[in-house]
Amino acid sequence: MDLQQEAIYHVPKDEYSYPLDEQTLKVTIRVKKGDIAGGKVLFTDRYDHPQYTPSIEQVPLKKEGSDGLFEYWSAAFVAPKRRPKYIFMLNTGHRSYWYSELGLTADRPAARWFEFPYLAGVDLPHYPSWLDEAIFYQIGVDRFYNGNPDNDPDGALPWGDEPTMTTFFGGDLEGVIKKINYLTELGVNAVYFNPLFLSPSTFKYDTEDYYLVDPSFGGNEAFEALIQAFHKAGIKVVLDAVFNHAGKRFKPFQDVVEKGKDSAYYDWFIIHDWPINMEEPGHNYDTFAYTARMPKLNHEHPEVRQYLLDVTQFWTEKGIDGWRLDVANELDHQFWREFRMLVKSVNPEAFILGEIWLDGTTWLQGDQFDSITNYLFRAPVLDFFGEQSIGATSLDERLLSARIRYREQQNRYMFNLIGSHDVPRFLSLCEGSEERMALATVFLFMYPGIPMVYYGDEVGMTGSTMVQARRCMVWDEAKQNKRLFQLYQSCIQWRKQLNPLKFGDFETLYVSEEDQVYGFARSYENEAVWAFFHNGVGKRQVTLDVPEGSEWIDLQTQKTVSVENEQLQLELDAYEYALIMKKTI
Amino acid sequence: MDLQQEAIYHVPKDEYSYPLDEQTLKVTIRVKKGDIAGGKVLFTDRYDHPQYTPSIEQVPLKKEGSDGLFEYWSAAFVAPKRRPKYIFMLNTGHRSYWYSELGLTADRPAARWFEFPYLAGVDLPHYPSWLDEAIFYQIGVDRFYNGNPDNDPDGALPWGDEPTMTTFFGGDLEGVIKKINYLTELGVNAVYFNPLFLSPSTFKYDTEDYYLVDPSFGGNEAFEALIQAFHKAGIKVVLDAVFNHAGKRFKPFQDVVEKGKDSAYYDWFIIHDWPINMEEPGHNYDTFAYTARMPKLNHEHPEVRQYLLDVTQFWTEKGIDGWRLDVANELDHQFWREFRMLVKSVNPEAFILGEIWLDGTTWLQGDQFDSITNYLFRAPVLDFFGEQSIGATSLDERLLSARIRYREQQNRYMFNLIGSHDVPRFLSLCEGSEERMALATVFLFMYPGIPMVYYGDEVGMTGSTMVQARRCMVWDEAKQNKRLFQLYQSCIQWRKQLNPLKFGDFETLYVSEEDQVYGFARSYENEAVWAFFHNGVGKRQVTLDVPEGSEWIDLQTQKTVSVENEQLQLELDAYEYALIMKKTI
Repeated sequence: MDLQQEAIYHVPKDEYSYPLDEQTLKVTIRVKKGDIAGGKVLFTDRYDHPQYTPSIEQVPLKKEGSDGLFEYWSAAFVAPKRRPKYIFMLNTGHRSYWYSELGLTADRPAARWFEFPYLAGVDLPHYPSWLDEAIFYQIGVDRFYNGNPDNDPDGALPWGDEPTMTTFFGGDLEGVIKKINYLTELGVNAVYFNPLFLSPSTFKYDTEDYYLVDPSFGGNEAFEALIQAFHKAGIKVVLDAVFNHAGKRFKPFQDVVEKGKDSAYYDWFIIHDWPINMEEPGHNYDTFAYTARMPKLNHEHPEVRQYLLDVTQFWTEKGIDGWRLDVANELDHQFWREFRMLVKSVNPEAFILGEIWLDGTTWLQGDQFDSITNYLFRAPVLDFFGEQSIGATSLDERLLSARIRYREQQNRYMFNLIGSHDVPRFLSLCEGSEERMALATVFLFMYPGIPMVYYGDEVGMTGSTMVQARRCMVWDEAKQNKRLFQLYQSCIQWRKQLNPLKFGDFETLYVSEEDQVYGFARSYENEAVWAFFHNGVGKRQVTLDVPEGSEWIDLQTQKTVSVENEQLQLELDAYEYALIMKKTI
Repeated sequence: MDLQQEAIYHVPKDEYSYPLDEQTLKVTIRVKKGDIAGGKVLFTDRYDHPQYTPSIEQVPLKKEGSDGLFEYWSAAFVAPKRRPKYIFMLNTGHRSYWYSELGLTADRPAARWFEFPYLAGVDLPHYPSWLDEAIFYQIGVDRFYNGNPDNDPDGALPWGDEPTMTTFFGGDLEGVIKKINYLTELGVNAVYFNPLFLSPSTFKYDTEDYYLVDPSFGGNEAFEALIQAFHKAGIKVVLDAVFNHAGKRFKPFQDVVEKGKDSAYYDWFIIHDWPINMEEPGHNYDTFAYTARMPKLNHEHPEVRQYLLDVTQFWTEKGIDGWRLDVANELDHQFWREFRMLVKSVNPEAFILGEIWLDGTTWLQGDQFDSITNYLFRAPVLDFFGEQSIGATSLDERLLSARIRYREQQNRYMFNLIGSHDVPRFLSLCEGSEERMALATVFLFMYPGIPMVYYGDEVGMTGSTMVQARRCMVWDEAKQNKRLFQLYQSCIQWRKQLNPLKFGDFETLYVSEEDQVYGFARSYENEAVWAFFHNGVGKRQVTLDVPEGSEWIDLQTQKTVSVENEQLQLELDAYEYALIMKKTI
């Protein structure tokens, strides 16, 4: 046998077989890298009938890419009667094999083809329509802008001082409202806020009262004003749901602390023995990680579930546009299903974003989240542009490996980020190199997925630790990096305006390990944007075949790119990127 | 590298990583057959903390079996803080490798261990408790017993005549009630009924009225009497929900036929163009398979969903014990989620069984079905005992391949069958060999899963086609195979009484391709039943190592089996089975 049968993988479900719409099934087969030269999918309806059964049709397999060990080959086809059966033909270049439920066979099997159950419209993922043009911005309120010094917490430090984990600076929602012009100038149209609800800490992941916006942020009144002002400015508002755990000042927890096992809330938490011990170290109840001030909620308790759903309903009905779910992987799936049904019943266009650092497939089957924080995107981008620890081949393989686990349509709604409050500033991870930060930024906006900007990244803020990454927003224009800001502006405009960036497929175009150049295409109908990144010093020449008669312009200069003999040449200086767009004729 | 890395498969989800209970995680890794001699799993809590993080523990991998190409190795461990991370160590006999999110590495990785999100009790599958002792019996009412000739359909044939697809024999619910003594004598304690609702056909998969039990079966009154009588006799009642499609006489469909696009129900179905055409061939609407009299319901329509849920609620509230879902794979998953929530809210002990012929994992994640029709069990059992087209090795591999795709606890609740109304009689597939039918029957009752008896199999009924498999129940004692009946009785009693058969693990004990002998163990706590099957002619001797000091009895004779030097010898005649039980000391 001239291909490795143990490497072959296909199941007629999950990311290997899924509908793109009510008519079209996409199927993927994994083979050992280099094992096949091509192949095809044969398909028909799975019910036999002398008069009716459609004839067997076929469609070629196309290589999606490689993750280093394997290659992934895919095809999409209109599924007869929405209940297809299909088999794969794999061609090694020397001979052909068939792959079905029977495994690999030399002959085409008559039975035991793969069957996809039914292309049901209800099970198709439905995303809020505004996500297609959404550009997110993340704001930690205490550190963004102080719009009202009267509500500052005691001991608030002067703006811009070096923070610790526990310092306050007085940022508030009035401040955010005052900076709406800044946000619209930048071009973002959605903000994800770190938690706003009453809490003794700066970043407020230890909620004291889920129904009150922290008075130091301006309280519920300021929040109502913010929603109105944001919506007027066309900016969506996404709140942080910290439902895995509460804060130690949360009234039910305080009741347990006071009354012990006699508290009506004693089983709202997971307390190992009595009396309760809140020392650190020494606490005797489940918490977030090992943080005594963050007691984990007992989601097995119906009252706790109802309480959290009530909170969800309250704020969703206030008109917010979505929820980011903190530590989403440590609550049960059934809770998130109930959460989704509630949120979407109040606002079908609400966005549900889970904080998931690893593989998110379990939550992205249509019944739970719309998206997850795509740290599997950030990691290779960081390793390539930031730490320069991997080359273009590995970048390509790892991005493929992150994409191939999700449905094609899901990849357009992954929540892509290079910075957040939980990691060091990207510019610092680039050792302060503005050029590499710029490359990574352009990459973020060209790549499929919803781009998010962590406040201050756009003006060149640095911070080598998580604490430093939460420094006060730099408003002093002299200290802002205007070149970076303008780059963000341009990227955001391109992203909002160009269909290939909003809706386009992804295809790797150029991988040069030696030249440190990586390029990809985003294509949508007859439009295309091609992006190239030179992650090294020296000059590079990239020669590209282009379709006959196509005309191209440079996205940055808007000048025509000359094409000769269906070839196009790009010159890339050290750490330069090139963006070209096919002219729609 | 002395093992094939492309063959290795593990994902920290699905059947490869799942909780057995709120504390215990079971993980499985797939490797190429023969590649490893052993291995282990290292695990700890995934949060680091100087004081708290538990030390890294380890547990050996155990081989679950092989499907021919691969081996599956598993381990279960108490997951620290219910949020473990873990890695695999694989030992080839010559050296060790590590397997993590990084793939296969020579050195133990410091980071990128696999993480299981959280062992949430709510997400654990919950099964009706009565399933542990459930023995199902399937009844097609028209063919079981005629208890009231007054309600016979016009043109009903004399009992026992050769049926066609459209003949009636007058069986009814009064008849079933009259045979309760027969059912209790046999020992079954749950009946799955083919559809009972009003329909012009014999097997009633084309519903006319979902709220009426067919008058020829005795109507709703007879059904109420049946529920009462069955429950009094300790027998559960499971109905067939034919929700994929209705019958052509279904009032909403008739309304569409009459009024065309003006009907209020015109979009309850999936009609391609107007006027509607019910010819066969020629019909222009979606159907079950290509059957014009079975128009598919349009489950995208909220009214259709609500209608079906109302029907579900109506009958569930009548006190039935569960639903078998016809063509379950051609409705959307979200419908089944809503269906489950409704059914379990009315009766948490109701059983939800999907008709699924292939892999059922998509429906068995806890949010949809409790079980599926396990035709992946029937197929190898048929090929081995019935058609004798495979040997003991293939039997073992294919059974493992069917088991390994489900959670360990799920395998105890798979709905195992060797016969149903949709396939030829098993005895006929054994070419009438009672011996092989007996072997397959014993196999069914010894194997993990809920056993189902298709009416008449227990008295030796035959039928080489689907139509013949639906012949009238043989009540003439002279024509009943009493030996088979007694075997069924014995099996059912063992199954209900012996903990290893109700709750036990499965382990392959003996696979002899040459001797055509297959044996396995079911073990529960300190109890065990071992079963051996000789699927050929001649005499066979099976020598078995047994635990030191253990004593064994023959389940059939209740006589002690002699053990010498921790060895035990079984003599198996042609087509004989042996069942031995470890004495609890």
